[in-house]
Amino acid sequence: MFVAMNNFSVNPERAEDFERTWRERETYLGDVPGFVHFVLLRSDDEGHYVSHSTWESRAHFEAWTESEAFTKGHRGGGSMEGILLDHPRVELFESVTEASPTTA
Amino acid sequence: MFVAMNNFSVNPERAEDFERTWRERETYLGDVPGFVHFVLLRSDDEGHYVSHSTWESRAHFEAWTESEAFTKGHRGGGSMEGILLDHPRVELFESVTEASPTTA
Repeated sequence: MFVAMNNFSVNPERAEDFERTWRERETYLGDVPGFVHFVLLRSDDEGHYVSHSTWESRAHFEAWTESEAFTKGHRGGGSMEGILLDHPRVELFESVTEASPTTA
Repeated sequence: MFVAMNNFSVNPERAEDFERTWRERETYLGDVPGFVHFVLLRSDDEGHYVSHSTWESRAHFEAWTESEAFTKGHRGGGSMEGILLDHPRVELFESVTEASPTTA
């Protein structure tokens, strides 16, 4: 499993605009090979958000970043002007160990 | 959905010991009410690890931190001496929006 996290520093007065932009956004992720899950997370630390995309492998993630789906999903980023306080910061991770609920 | 992340700063020379400790650890999470998923992630940034536990709600997470399962799962933390370069840093998150693969 492979996870790409993107850290966003958001103007607290524009947090509602930031969240609405994400809720209304078409990610074009649903049909991408190797895509497992996406979530946008709001930290208890005001103004900090993390987007989190999970992939079957790093190769699947890299193929997505070079795909048409990626280009389409990232159009209109200019609408974040005045909302973000800094450039988003990407960090990439490989899974070491996992646990899931015990099935009865 | 609720996510608790714990950030670890690990001595790069002890990274294998850190990972082995987690792989061999009994988390006691499997049967905990509201538990969704756990993963330990290794960053591309050397020495940075994030543990990531997902819960149905903040209330489920908080109930777990006060439970016997939590106490049992966190015994033996002293074995991290010399492996961690700093205290772990916890950050708590609420889900804003999610996406999953399109089912065919």
